[in-house]
Amino acid sequence: MNISKHEMSLSTPKENFYNITSSVRQIVSESGVKNGIAVVFCPHTTAGITINENADPDVIPDMLLGLSKAYPDRAEFRHGEGNSAAHLKATAVGSGVTIIIADGKPVLGTWQGIYFCEFDAPRNRRYFVQVMGH
Amino acid sequence: MNISKHEMSLSTPKENFYNITSSVRQIVSESGVKNGIAVVFCPHTTAGITINENADPDVIPDMLLGLSKAYPDRAEFRHGEGNSAAHLKATAVGSGVTIIIADGKPVLGTWQGIYFCEFDAPRNRRYFVQVMGH
Amino acid sequence: MNISKHEMSLSTPKENFYNITSSVRQIVSESGVKNGIAVVFCPHTTAGITINENADPDVIPDMLLGLSKAYPDRAEFRHGEGNSAAHLKATAVGSGVTIIIADGKPVLGTWQGIYFCEFDAPRNRRYFVQVMGH
Repeated sequence: MNISKHEMSLSTPKENFYNITSSVRQIVSESGVKNGIAVVFCPHTTAGITINENADPDVIPDMLLGLSKAYPDRAEFRHGEGNSAAHLKATAVGSGVTIIIADGKPVLGTWQGIYFCEFDAPRNRRYFVQVMGH
Repeated sequence: MNISKHEMSLSTPKENFYNITSSVRQIVSESGVKNGIAVVFCPHTTAGITINENADPDVIPDMLLGLSKAYPDRAEFRHGEGNSAAHLKATAVGSGVTIIIADGKPVLGTWQGIYFCEFDAPRNRRYFVQVMGH
Repeated sequence: MNISKHEMSLSTPKENFYNITSSVRQIVSESGVKNGIAVVFCPHTTAGITINENADPDVIPDMLLGLSKAYPDRAEFRHGEGNSAAHLKATAVGSGVTIIIADGKPVLGTWQGIYFCEFDAPRNRRYFVQVMGH
């Protein structure tokens, strides 16, 4: 079995979803794994990973707005850094996704992209991709 | 190592959680894998996969209501298709789950079922199950 | 390939996030797996698993508050047990996480901890860890 860990970095100037699909595709392609899985993981607590719309650029701003309405900053929050809403959004989207690899490629729907979700910008961030299969 | 990808389809006449547990159990059983994992993945951006209550049929309508309250449609949304709330709910539940396989069976709690969550009905949908183990 | 399933139990006296990071680290260490994944899975429908802040103890109460505001109990809920909000929170955080293992250790960020999220206390609970790799 082929197991390889890959580390990527990105700058996140503002709260946004950053499309990392092409990087993940390239990592899977270069890994040589034909069938298996790829775990995409965010090692930060105010950012996460999700899979959603890759076509209409209006979807992401709508999602950011909807998340901020569901998890607004609150006067009752006690965390000194003042970013508890970002922690909530990170847990809401999740810290990682597991993707199926078949025929040497990530199995994604036509309209799906993989996003690094930044909720506490600006930052310099990392994510990991573990490719596992044969 | 045994790795096999399975594709299933379903019709989703309305916004609802569709119980796919028996299909996943059958796929795992027929795969011959005794110990490993199964990745259940939804390739759509306004639907997702979650694990929740399989007993009282009142739980799912309550969850659909709670999700619609947390992520309502909003006048400010700009996405032309008008289904940004469905995109938000898809990311809220997540695009997939990873299940443990032991003794040839999915490891699920007594009250757990696996659901395909449709937020943008009616549709014809697919999901994938990657079984991996030995 | 090395695949091993581990079962852990915990008591959850109140609605809270319970830090299980050290248990997961120990399971991974004792498994002998150097590179692979660990699937941490909650077999309950009113509890879940998430990864978030391990440092400032004020973050978890803020997150519990934010989740209860996003998914409050509602008069319209019909589920007889009266814990539909707990089911919603369980799906919001998710029933499991998949962690990368490299160099014999879970790959986690400096500020990340793994939490068992109890939304329907008090209970006696279990979780599973499937370690898979070589």
